[in-house]
Amino acid sequence: MQSFDVDEIVRALREARHEWRDSQNRSREPRGREFPSREALTEIVEALKGALFPMRLGPPDLRHESEDFYVGHTLDAALIGLVLQARLELRYSGRQQALDEAAIDAQADAAVKAFGASLPQIRRLLDSDVLAAYQGDPAARSVDEVLLCYPGVLAMIHHRVAHRLYGLGLPLLARIVAELAHGQTGIDIHPGATIGAGFFMDHGTGVVIGETAVIGERVRLYQAVTLGAKRFPTDAEGHLQKGLPRHPVVEDDVVIYAGATILGRVTLGQGATIGGNVWVTDDVPAGASVTQASLQNRPCP
Amino acid sequence: MQSFDVDEIVRALREARHEWRDSQNRSREPRGREFPSREALTEIVEALKGALFPMRLGPPDLRHESEDFYVGHTLDAALIGLVLQARLELRYSGRQQALDEAAIDAQADAAVKAFGASLPQIRRLLDSDVLAAYQGDPAARSVDEVLLCYPGVLAMIHHRVAHRLYGLGLPLLARIVAELAHGQTGIDIHPGATIGAGFFMDHGTGVVIGETAVIGERVRLYQAVTLGAKRFPTDAEGHLQKGLPRHPVVEDDVVIYAGATILGRVTLGQGATIGGNVWVTDDVPAGASVTQASLQNRPCP
Amino acid sequence: MQSFDVDEIVRALREARHEWRDSQNRSREPRGREFPSREALTEIVEALKGALFPMRLGPPDLRHESEDFYVGHTLDAALIGLVLQARLELRYSGRQQALDEAAIDAQADAAVKAFGASLPQIRRLLDSDVLAAYQGDPAARSVDEVLLCYPGVLAMIHHRVAHRLYGLGLPLLARIVAELAHGQTGIDIHPGATIGAGFFMDHGTGVVIGETAVIGERVRLYQAVTLGAKRFPTDAEGHLQKGLPRHPVVEDDVVIYAGATILGRVTLGQGATIGGNVWVTDDVPAGASVTQASLQNRPCP
Amino acid sequence: MQSFDVDEIVRALREARHEWRDSQNRSREPRGREFPSREALTEIVEALKGALFPMRLGPPDLRHESEDFYVGHTLDAALIGLVLQARLELRYSGRQQALDEAAIDAQADAAVKAFGASLPQIRRLLDSDVLAAYQGDPAARSVDEVLLCYPGVLAMIHHRVAHRLYGLGLPLLARIVAELAHGQTGIDIHPGATIGAGFFMDHGTGVVIGETAVIGERVRLYQAVTLGAKRFPTDAEGHLQKGLPRHPVVEDDVVIYAGATILGRVTLGQGATIGGNVWVTDDVPAGASVTQASLQNRPCP
Amino acid sequence: MQSFDVDEIVRALREARHEWRDSQNRSREPRGREFPSREALTEIVEALKGALFPMRLGPPDLRHESEDFYVGHTLDAALIGLVLQARLELRYSGRQQALDEAAIDAQADAAVKAFGASLPQIRRLLDSDVLAAYQGDPAARSVDEVLLCYPGVLAMIHHRVAHRLYGLGLPLLARIVAELAHGQTGIDIHPGATIGAGFFMDHGTGVVIGETAVIGERVRLYQAVTLGAKRFPTDAEGHLQKGLPRHPVVEDDVVIYAGATILGRVTLGQGATIGGNVWVTDDVPAGASVTQASLQNRPCP
Amino acid sequence: MQSFDVDEIVRALREARHEWRDSQNRSREPRGREFPSREALTEIVEALKGALFPMRLGPPDLRHESEDFYVGHTLDAALIGLVLQARLELRYSGRQQALDEAAIDAQADAAVKAFGASLPQIRRLLDSDVLAAYQGDPAARSVDEVLLCYPGVLAMIHHRVAHRLYGLGLPLLARIVAELAHGQTGIDIHPGATIGAGFFMDHGTGVVIGETAVIGERVRLYQAVTLGAKRFPTDAEGHLQKGLPRHPVVEDDVVIYAGATILGRVTLGQGATIGGNVWVTDDVPAGASVTQASLQNRPCP
Repeated sequence: MQSFDVDEIVRALREARHEWRDSQNRSREPRGREFPSREALTEIVEALKGALFPMRLGPPDLRHESEDFYVGHTLDAALIGLVLQARLELRYSGRQQALDEAAIDAQADAAVKAFGASLPQIRRLLDSDVLAAYQGDPAARSVDEVLLCYPGVLAMIHHRVAHRLYGLGLPLLARIVAELAHGQTGIDIHPGATIGAGFFMDHGTGVVIGETAVIGERVRLYQAVTLGAKRFPTDAEGHLQKGLPRHPVVEDDVVIYAGATILGRVTLGQGATIGGNVWVTDDVPAGASVTQASLQNRPCP
Repeated sequence: MQSFDVDEIVRALREARHEWRDSQNRSREPRGREFPSREALTEIVEALKGALFPMRLGPPDLRHESEDFYVGHTLDAALIGLVLQARLELRYSGRQQALDEAAIDAQADAAVKAFGASLPQIRRLLDSDVLAAYQGDPAARSVDEVLLCYPGVLAMIHHRVAHRLYGLGLPLLARIVAELAHGQTGIDIHPGATIGAGFFMDHGTGVVIGETAVIGERVRLYQAVTLGAKRFPTDAEGHLQKGLPRHPVVEDDVVIYAGATILGRVTLGQGATIGGNVWVTDDVPAGASVTQASLQNRPCP
Repeated sequence: MQSFDVDEIVRALREARHEWRDSQNRSREPRGREFPSREALTEIVEALKGALFPMRLGPPDLRHESEDFYVGHTLDAALIGLVLQARLELRYSGRQQALDEAAIDAQADAAVKAFGASLPQIRRLLDSDVLAAYQGDPAARSVDEVLLCYPGVLAMIHHRVAHRLYGLGLPLLARIVAELAHGQTGIDIHPGATIGAGFFMDHGTGVVIGETAVIGERVRLYQAVTLGAKRFPTDAEGHLQKGLPRHPVVEDDVVIYAGATILGRVTLGQGATIGGNVWVTDDVPAGASVTQASLQNRPCP
Repeated sequence: MQSFDVDEIVRALREARHEWRDSQNRSREPRGREFPSREALTEIVEALKGALFPMRLGPPDLRHESEDFYVGHTLDAALIGLVLQARLELRYSGRQQALDEAAIDAQADAAVKAFGASLPQIRRLLDSDVLAAYQGDPAARSVDEVLLCYPGVLAMIHHRVAHRLYGLGLPLLARIVAELAHGQTGIDIHPGATIGAGFFMDHGTGVVIGETAVIGERVRLYQAVTLGAKRFPTDAEGHLQKGLPRHPVVEDDVVIYAGATILGRVTLGQGATIGGNVWVTDDVPAGASVTQASLQNRPCP
Repeated sequence: MQSFDVDEIVRALREARHEWRDSQNRSREPRGREFPSREALTEIVEALKGALFPMRLGPPDLRHESEDFYVGHTLDAALIGLVLQARLELRYSGRQQALDEAAIDAQADAAVKAFGASLPQIRRLLDSDVLAAYQGDPAARSVDEVLLCYPGVLAMIHHRVAHRLYGLGLPLLARIVAELAHGQTGIDIHPGATIGAGFFMDHGTGVVIGETAVIGERVRLYQAVTLGAKRFPTDAEGHLQKGLPRHPVVEDDVVIYAGATILGRVTLGQGATIGGNVWVTDDVPAGASVTQASLQNRPCP
Repeated sequence: MQSFDVDEIVRALREARHEWRDSQNRSREPRGREFPSREALTEIVEALKGALFPMRLGPPDLRHESEDFYVGHTLDAALIGLVLQARLELRYSGRQQALDEAAIDAQADAAVKAFGASLPQIRRLLDSDVLAAYQGDPAARSVDEVLLCYPGVLAMIHHRVAHRLYGLGLPLLARIVAELAHGQTGIDIHPGATIGAGFFMDHGTGVVIGETAVIGERVRLYQAVTLGAKRFPTDAEGHLQKGLPRHPVVEDDVVIYAGATILGRVTLGQGATIGGNVWVTDDVPAGASVTQASLQNRPCP
């Protein structure tokens, strides 16, 4: 095997890194890798899944006698791991400011404590999602099959965890948790999205739900539905404005069929039905039914 | 690191579990985890892939002299593993009834024996799928590249295995096998779907094929095609009726382009062509070609 | 557990393999498994990601003092591994011809040496993609979040590596690298596609980009966009013609919204905007904006 | 690579197995592998070590708040695993008799329940061993160092577990647990040996303690000490008699230096000291000191 | 964390390597690591153990129906792995000479083929060792316990494999196989030693058996027995002479108790008994019994 | 499976832990596990072995071109890992005192920096040990075989690393490194022992070398040699006195045969030879030869 001039490649890659760091006004002397770890969060989410559903997602040989021991031990490990990741995120996001390390650590501890306390509520919401899927899919045989097999339910476990982290000031952890589900299911829900109880996505591949979307209770989506932004709001000088409401509001009991695209801060009224592949950029009244046919059947000009 | 009140979280999670179990009329004293294992089925499918295609999906150092030893040993381990999973499914599905354990075990054994006997036929069908992909894609360089790289072929290996398990009374195992492929490829084929030889999905991401779909020979699909149900059939009192034919029948030699949606128990006649993004809810005659243009070119009212 | 007649299954599977090998005019005595290994390429790509972005995708405890040691060691292992895979591909593709093993090995060495030398350029292109994503997504908080979380960026790391391998005469390695990203992200870019700097795919699931597509600089795509072939070019006798330009040309600064389908060797002129779910099979002038509405607003016949 | 005639080797090995099975009067149709598993017991002992000493041999990130959750969860898994191994042993040892499977399972359950109940007592004995090592070795810096580093302590953790299993009618499990320590430390204690509190083996490599040895409290041994049988007791017809007392009795506070060999059912009286490399086959009075010199200084005949 | 001057340590270590290579008259440009791999041989020996004793050392779920498939597949992998290691050894040992690579490969193939053919004979010898241990130890409960638990039997599995490799011109592979057992059992048998059927080492730790030792049938040793060389034979100029017989000959039915040391090319006659801790440097007649007492009881001068 | 009363066992184990902590005057509220980790040190030593001998103990595919990259990267990871373990030890040993965390960290950094700087010298000493083994053993075929196969050399790699750590104020890390070798080789060298260049232990199992032993250059030992303390020095009140010289001094070129025991602060003069199984508690003059025979041949009284 011949030489590959590794020395020269190493040198040229170093040069490329320096260019990048200079362009980003970064020191060439970083203190180490500071970003939260995808691998660590993968383990944490696996542990949380077991703690939330011990007899179904926990270890195969778990017995009722020891269920709480398992839950307590697993939770403890998950929360400790989460604290470490939370500190990494808070230090990363605060590195422009002169922040006190002890203050950051206390903030991470408090966030994770609040997160832990909300797990029972998350479990109840997920139970409602499981029931919704079971009741909405004629092919479902049992609630257990739904919990174990449906990618839409997997995506919601991740989302309800990620949404809570997002609300506690840990948007990067939330994002990584969401992307883990995205990679496995093809369902892309931004952790900022607010989603009510009893939510069901059938098939799910290709669903996209944006950061400021608000979804009511008992809503049902099919694959490849988009709840997106129409265009990015800009301020007077044309800069993107972050955080403004720019995704749809979907009220209770709405059904949206495969491939439909809803864009912008529009409202789909309670009980509305949106047909497949339909493109919606205006409000839809409660109870209305919108289909491609209805749009095309508008009189010719 | 401060305390996380793990005791309290454990208590509240236990309460949530009890609520759930009460709502499902389940004993609070389950005997242990009884559902088949995703991890075990992942291993079983890997073993089956090696046994079906030993020189291409088996171990890298396999030699012709020992091909049958490898196939026999691998099959044996896979079938034993499958028996254990089959028993779990049959016990789970039969737990409302007073079933005899020995009878369940015998049923599992018989199902797995029949499954094993059908593997040569599955191999022949998969060979026809590989050939169809090779012949249908100008970018394909060899049949081996197709077998090893094409997600559509991976999805069909899973489907043909899952469909056989489904036919042998093991729908949960079948479902898990199907979801394993769904997670890796974004292709969602219900194990109940009947698919003929020489089936080819190009790109594939987003394809959805429903439980009662029937597909003939030499059919070709592109990405994001849906063969779905128009609406769920309900009985007189409005309850969902399970198992009724509600997905399309696709006859031999049909081609369906990307994003097309075919809904309900309609028939696409032999040799028909369905254009991209088209929405079809009626029968299409043999040999016909349906495109968005053709739909829009219908005279204005 | 009863007998499964493993002997008989093994016999019947052998028969099926022999049928296949006969149908493919292959010897029944292959010398061993000769195809490149998906597992080996998975490791190689992981190593390349670390060598390209050591402080962000390398090991968590990397320090600046030892950055170059890490890069050099990791690169060396990756390039050696790549040489072995390149030899496998070249032997495989050349097995019909009477090729000299030493010549194949020298060709593999030379290709990998050229590949290594192009890594700094690949790093610069990827930096431009990261910046484009950061600037184009109001939800992005930092360039590091983009690099670590965005599936579109992951797909581009794979694509820029795969495209280089494709250009160096290693299309199978390139294809496997591309499929690894396809499986994780649902984004399907053929390694042959030419893509300029500053490319951004938002959400990305379901994007398909064909082999002969040519994309300029600063182009932005949303999920489920297809840049495909209208139909396969055939020669006078109806055989598929491989390698002919059959996918779109997308000029600089074009934006294509979710679900749009562009088919055939058409050109989207500089700065054009293509709306969501639109179906385009003709050239679009520079600066033009095409939407479903604009298509439907064409006068009735 | 040439052929290795694997078929022929397989045939000849089968013949050798059949010879063996015939010579052992065994059916050629065993039902499967029935012996307890070394791997399973390795895991079980690791878990027991963690449950016995959670903050020192448990997971590195364990916190006081969750100590009991960890202990309970780990114990539960270990005891369940132990039940499965106990059933294997009892079925194996009972396979000549027509035993009721349910009776065997109940016996295994009862043995493991009794084993679990004795763990707190085992912990207290091990604490006394740790203290003895700390007090007896001038090089020891802390009790924690002793627990974590001293092979003699590791051997005693295994022995005290193995001895309890031995007493509960599980001699094979006990033997495997003992051999695991033998392999790691070179210390070979038969699980039948009775050993009092505060036992300390310094260095330890080469120590051998036989099945019927009885050791009092606060005994100290150095490396390569043997407490063995002088000769095997035989009955009138010359058959080995199993289970008869044939190893030494060592009373409280005895010290035995390196390389000493004590053989047969002799008694070393309380507080006796046995010098290095000495060979003892007779009783030694309490308080006596035996050295090579003292033996050689006996008057010439 | 401060800087560790890694650059400087790397430089100084390089200097130390160059000194060493110069002192050994080696090129500073080695072609890569060429020594056989301890890890590879560990796997190969594990596979051989399974192939030799499939129902006891093979996989836990093996069934009689598939025993031969397992043996054949496992053997094949082991023999292929062994060929690669044999080539490494032969190239290494032949690197001073101008050897033909193809000739080396053929030699490796032939050696491994002969090794494979001798496995049935090795199995029979090991069966005789297992029986000898069972019959010789009153604590043994079954032949299966002996095979699975006794370190002396483990050492003999390694030795009988290693001795065969040694005889086939692969002394380095043999040595590594022997050292693997030495590390696990504390029993150090040089692969050159010739050992007859029915050999039993009780306890075993500390046994040392030299390269040219010759041991008959039904010999029994206890722990810490040495069969060593008295002094190294040197030639006229005082250089060590390799390969000369310099270790004891032990005839059939000899018993040697713990700690005895037999040095030099002496013969222990058939049926002799050597007591514990005895030091022997002269021939012992057949049937004689040598003890420390008998040596010390020689009349005073 | 019946209940195991896990709750009750957990309670009783907690009680046993509290008793222990009370007896040791420890708080019941430890802050977490604080002892250095055996697993971490196992990895660190593996990395150091690779960095010291890259082409022989490093990765199998290492090439000369990248040797320094490998060494630098591996060293960096090992030294970082060592700093973390050093901090754990220093905090543990200082927990009775009110120590400043920053001061501890600086002390750990400095110790590891000094350790790193001494690695080239350690490499040179180990080269001398390898040469000594090669020259002293007629069975050795090459220096590479010695480095890779001889347990005595493995023990010396660990010892020379451990001794340096011991000298830098990290006795616990040193002890763990030493015990790792003890477990693998049966050779027990206290890290405090001072050992000159060219040291060779043949076979080695059972060798024990005490904390204050001092060994010159070119010394050779055989298996089961003990360099121990005669008795523990006590002060006026009978307390053990730690750290006093209490083990032998062995001058240059001494040879000690198997099983010899040298006890107390005696001196074996330059070039002395100690025979097998001999017991020495007095000084031996330079050049003298001591054997059992010579001791026994002393005139009768």
